[in-house]
Amino acid sequence: MAGSIYGKLFTISTWGESHGKALGVVVDGCPAGIPLCEEDIQIYLNRRKPGQNQYSTQRNESDTVEILSGVFEGKTTGTPISMMVRNQDQHSKDYGDIAVSYRPGHADYCFDEKYGFRDYRGGGRSSGRETIGRVAAGAIAAKVLETMGIKLTAYTRSIGEYCIDYNNFDKDEILRNPLYMPDKACSEKAGEYLKEIISELDSIGSSVECIITGMPVGIGEPVFSKLDALLAQGIMSIGAVKAVEIGDGTLVSQSKGSYNNDNFIIDNDCVAKLTNHSGGILGGMSDGSPIKVRASFKPTPSIYKEQKTVNKAHEEITMAIKGRHDPIIGPRAVVVLEAMCAITILDLLMINATARIDNLLKIYDR
Amino acid sequence: MAGSIYGKLFTISTWGESHGKALGVVVDGCPAGIPLCEEDIQIYLNRRKPGQNQYSTQRNESDTVEILSGVFEGKTTGTPISMMVRNQDQHSKDYGDIAVSYRPGHADYCFDEKYGFRDYRGGGRSSGRETIGRVAAGAIAAKVLETMGIKLTAYTRSIGEYCIDYNNFDKDEILRNPLYMPDKACSEKAGEYLKEIISELDSIGSSVECIITGMPVGIGEPVFSKLDALLAQGIMSIGAVKAVEIGDGTLVSQSKGSYNNDNFIIDNDCVAKLTNHSGGILGGMSDGSPIKVRASFKPTPSIYKEQKTVNKAHEEITMAIKGRHDPIIGPRAVVVLEAMCAITILDLLMINATARIDNLLKIYDR
Amino acid sequence: MAGSIYGKLFTISTWGESHGKALGVVVDGCPAGIPLCEEDIQIYLNRRKPGQNQYSTQRNESDTVEILSGVFEGKTTGTPISMMVRNQDQHSKDYGDIAVSYRPGHADYCFDEKYGFRDYRGGGRSSGRETIGRVAAGAIAAKVLETMGIKLTAYTRSIGEYCIDYNNFDKDEILRNPLYMPDKACSEKAGEYLKEIISELDSIGSSVECIITGMPVGIGEPVFSKLDALLAQGIMSIGAVKAVEIGDGTLVSQSKGSYNNDNFIIDNDCVAKLTNHSGGILGGMSDGSPIKVRASFKPTPSIYKEQKTVNKAHEEITMAIKGRHDPIIGPRAVVVLEAMCAITILDLLMINATARIDNLLKIYDR
Amino acid sequence: MAGSIYGKLFTISTWGESHGKALGVVVDGCPAGIPLCEEDIQIYLNRRKPGQNQYSTQRNESDTVEILSGVFEGKTTGTPISMMVRNQDQHSKDYGDIAVSYRPGHADYCFDEKYGFRDYRGGGRSSGRETIGRVAAGAIAAKVLETMGIKLTAYTRSIGEYCIDYNNFDKDEILRNPLYMPDKACSEKAGEYLKEIISELDSIGSSVECIITGMPVGIGEPVFSKLDALLAQGIMSIGAVKAVEIGDGTLVSQSKGSYNNDNFIIDNDCVAKLTNHSGGILGGMSDGSPIKVRASFKPTPSIYKEQKTVNKAHEEITMAIKGRHDPIIGPRAVVVLEAMCAITILDLLMINATARIDNLLKIYDR
Repeated sequence: MAGSIYGKLFTISTWGESHGKALGVVVDGCPAGIPLCEEDIQIYLNRRKPGQNQYSTQRNESDTVEILSGVFEGKTTGTPISMMVRNQDQHSKDYGDIAVSYRPGHADYCFDEKYGFRDYRGGGRSSGRETIGRVAAGAIAAKVLETMGIKLTAYTRSIGEYCIDYNNFDKDEILRNPLYMPDKACSEKAGEYLKEIISELDSIGSSVECIITGMPVGIGEPVFSKLDALLAQGIMSIGAVKAVEIGDGTLVSQSKGSYNNDNFIIDNDCVAKLTNHSGGILGGMSDGSPIKVRASFKPTPSIYKEQKTVNKAHEEITMAIKGRHDPIIGPRAVVVLEAMCAITILDLLMINATARIDNLLKIYDR
Repeated sequence: MAGSIYGKLFTISTWGESHGKALGVVVDGCPAGIPLCEEDIQIYLNRRKPGQNQYSTQRNESDTVEILSGVFEGKTTGTPISMMVRNQDQHSKDYGDIAVSYRPGHADYCFDEKYGFRDYRGGGRSSGRETIGRVAAGAIAAKVLETMGIKLTAYTRSIGEYCIDYNNFDKDEILRNPLYMPDKACSEKAGEYLKEIISELDSIGSSVECIITGMPVGIGEPVFSKLDALLAQGIMSIGAVKAVEIGDGTLVSQSKGSYNNDNFIIDNDCVAKLTNHSGGILGGMSDGSPIKVRASFKPTPSIYKEQKTVNKAHEEITMAIKGRHDPIIGPRAVVVLEAMCAITILDLLMINATARIDNLLKIYDR
Repeated sequence: MAGSIYGKLFTISTWGESHGKALGVVVDGCPAGIPLCEEDIQIYLNRRKPGQNQYSTQRNESDTVEILSGVFEGKTTGTPISMMVRNQDQHSKDYGDIAVSYRPGHADYCFDEKYGFRDYRGGGRSSGRETIGRVAAGAIAAKVLETMGIKLTAYTRSIGEYCIDYNNFDKDEILRNPLYMPDKACSEKAGEYLKEIISELDSIGSSVECIITGMPVGIGEPVFSKLDALLAQGIMSIGAVKAVEIGDGTLVSQSKGSYNNDNFIIDNDCVAKLTNHSGGILGGMSDGSPIKVRASFKPTPSIYKEQKTVNKAHEEITMAIKGRHDPIIGPRAVVVLEAMCAITILDLLMINATARIDNLLKIYDR
Repeated sequence: MAGSIYGKLFTISTWGESHGKALGVVVDGCPAGIPLCEEDIQIYLNRRKPGQNQYSTQRNESDTVEILSGVFEGKTTGTPISMMVRNQDQHSKDYGDIAVSYRPGHADYCFDEKYGFRDYRGGGRSSGRETIGRVAAGAIAAKVLETMGIKLTAYTRSIGEYCIDYNNFDKDEILRNPLYMPDKACSEKAGEYLKEIISELDSIGSSVECIITGMPVGIGEPVFSKLDALLAQGIMSIGAVKAVEIGDGTLVSQSKGSYNNDNFIIDNDCVAKLTNHSGGILGGMSDGSPIKVRASFKPTPSIYKEQKTVNKAHEEITMAIKGRHDPIIGPRAVVVLEAMCAITILDLLMINATARIDNLLKIYDR
């Protein structure tokens, strides 16, 4: 696929720039017969909307989604679902500085070298607004998965050194605090810390996790389309992610086999596992336990602090980035991670549907 | 793609089981005009060959590769390159135990659920021998990249808690010690530790890194085919990998922007960077600095120690896995990681060739 | 690919239904640096617009295109180009008949069986309006090709038994007559004939050709992505096409080798051919001669004449299809054929750019 | 996909040259649980084997297939099935002439221009032997389809002007005569005619058809992956095919709608059609009637007669092609056409399995 298309059977094609006319996505291959309306999508988009609290950019966007095709009489028809969000709050400010200079930690320089020039308005295609298409498509994928009994829960795990205490894990808390943390005490401390960061004109990194329950066993295609391999692609493709971990993640490099192996047990006459170091994936396939993935987000590269850099004329300069930018990426990316997981899992679940001749005989009733 | 195919323009299709007749790969889309012979491939395959030292399985395989097509008069022709390695040392032992039981940490159970049954001989398709096709294809990709001035260096970074000291980094040391570590002192300590692990009938995790130098700027396709996203897929698709990190990796989640941002500078009238926290990738595109990726390998799931598990009859049992298995995966996977990086980067480098109309005009001389 | 995505490097993703809110396309992978504005697209769309003459449906649509992304300062940026056309003239008539009955020659029955139900308003996704996305994308592809010196000329070749006389071929005539025929005399006779067909409440078949000149040699990928193979897919994917021919087409089945083989000659020190029975394609690659492809369009399945058919209740009924429908498909499909040829050829031309290591060295200047 | 890979879920990757060591195919994505042995494949390969009668090349090849992976205990495991045929009768003759000259009607010139040089031994990758991989994969696809009640029948329809009389159609006759015609009288006349052609040192064109029965309704993905569109790609990708027709094919361009439309009827309470001008495909989806496709094969370009052409030094020369070549392509391509239809249909049948949420719920038993 070209770079803006993702998935094999459930395929999404996203488009749009930060300060263009609009952003959107075309979802091709969505199964027919799923009840769907714009509200289903809007709920997801609202979770990533800017300007909702003191920790996020004050850009004022309603991010209202319009479904343009693929839904008829309230249900998906099996044809492409096109969705669009118009940009509204595009400051007509002068982009002169950014246009001719390379912001540290940003892709400005790479874009110029790759394409010969770039849409320098607010990051163009590499803006966080690019995720609108992902989230809209993810809302659909999550809805299909829910029909199958599969649920996704994403949340902020840590902000700087402030990490949640899993003993305090409260799922209901996630949507209650502006940092989307499932541990209220931690979210409060992290919030205080964030204010410090803001006052320092700096930004801070974070980590985000997603848990997926209700998975059938065997989802994921050996060898290259393993469930974890495609989750890694999908998640690492989110801007600012620098690490993807499954289950115990980097810890496994220091674990012994006798500890890391999850013992199988019989539970209610079903095969189950005593522990879940594997994060629900063995040999690239779901093993029936909850899937657990984690992403590490770098700090927002746009900071108000003065930095050294260069311009297109190859002069060394200093710059302090003006405009609106968040001091942290993770919390607003929680729903993006959830979306990418939903899309990836649904696609592999659909691919897996034809793994056995029995399945084909069942569908075609022969 | 179906699960055993990888890459878009430089496409590899691997096949083969641990105890089948042979294993191999078809490489489609390799540019024409690259000098290539079997020795080029064999050098890479020998780096992953079993039975070469006390830390690796004593299975006796020459792993001799045969090039069956796509090369004529010593050069690649542009047509598919088919390569094959015959299996030789297939013990005719009784697989009865494995056939009806689910080894902890292995994919046995997932295979049975996904396909209805499985080739239980030595792990079948999920055996480490599956990587033969990857490595053979990677040898070709690395050769093409070398022609372009791009070089890959992979090595074991840590074994259990024994991690290399980057101040002692000696590239030449890598191929000299059996653990493929670039730090002689560390490799010796890790070797002693491994003997302990072996005596405990246990296994241990490890981490492996790859550095790629000589990269042009702009390789990688936003949004979903970012260089880091596809590296993540390729690397996570290697059996036993549970985490993929780029540059500073998980550390970024605790870094401030003012630290994490690499300042651009002018060096010899070229744009360069003062630091490389990004690991050579910004916005999913190469930024001209060395690319740095890291994988965390879980400990070998096969251990001689007795473990609790279940069988197909849904009975809880204990099993001690007999046969030949390594106490550690990382060192033999070093060349596999290098191969996956080479394949991924070459593919994106080829895709990037058409990013600008100028390039097309140059090639077609118009 | 899923069904609504086409192309590998130059990838188009179309969406929209006849009576939905809008129709459109996302073009991913367009090279950066091509001058592009809405007028470039509109010119192509106008060639397929309904209601322009007595032979085409009186549906009143301006078909005004909006470019939503991927163009900045008048040039393509390399990021996805999203284009949209809003539907305007959606009669609020009662679709009751069509909703519960299966029109002969239409896909109604197949849609119901495949998806469980269908968007029955005006054919939904299988309407001729689906081609808006193809044509908009084709306009871009044609513009890129023109930059490379490659030109496409499509026209109506025959209507019923009225076929153009190649001796009268006048390229300038094509856009002058409403039937897009390059032979004025023939177009007039065909026009008279069409009036008869209309008066009979019937419809008639037609054939359309496209000639492509300026092709470099070697475009097309053996074995499955041959230039003719992908042209065949692209063209056959246009609604109502039942045959695709290259060069002499079906005639070759009665030709002798000594006649069908085109003799190579030297012309101005270049390799050329004395004849062009091959239609510019040998072994699935362009041979430097003009490419010639032909499509046979079936008569419009919607006719005013009464026909026998069945309904969803499995009753045999008769129906006369009301509403607006053309008596012929070919003339309005001329630009669609041209679009599909342009898209297909550009994609293969981009893929071919990496066929040789020399090309890569040239682009990366190494 | 790169040029030697075909299919999305049932994916084949073919490789090998006429005079290389071997030819073969890797089939990825075959459903698990299909009984399969080498004999199943050999039966198909024998139908295209050279040297079986006076009308085909006397090259002596046993074309014995070896299954190298993907089958265990007599059944497909769901992992890649690798199959190989070793070349045996590679004449060690001097290829000097062909190496430096361009045979009319062949791809020699295109290969040289595309890749910089070519494997000139017997046509290399563009040899008819390339079809071995297609046929081996097709044998598997046909077996899966047969399990679903879908049957394919391919045959030679015409040789030069000698066309079968459908009133004499006898399916059992196909495998009885060396020209694979279902009309004995016609095959005898065509045989006499072929002898004339041979004595003239010339070759002749032909047409081949395939009928597929037992199709479920709704197979094929609108818009670009229509059943007829992908059949067209698959068939046109067979060397020497210059036209692909569905149902009435080119005739539709002269038909009226009232004739071309197939009236729906109720037969045994099922929807059926009175006629089958559509060739079993409406709107790109199977309509439940038998599918009918036709390919026109050009005459063998290699002829013993002297022809004018050029060499690499850009000199005009004459050449008479020596060696072994058939006077006609169609009959040996009958099984190739059947194979490409089987592969294409199975792939789309698998893709269609996830068109509806009901299907997913059925498979995952939720």
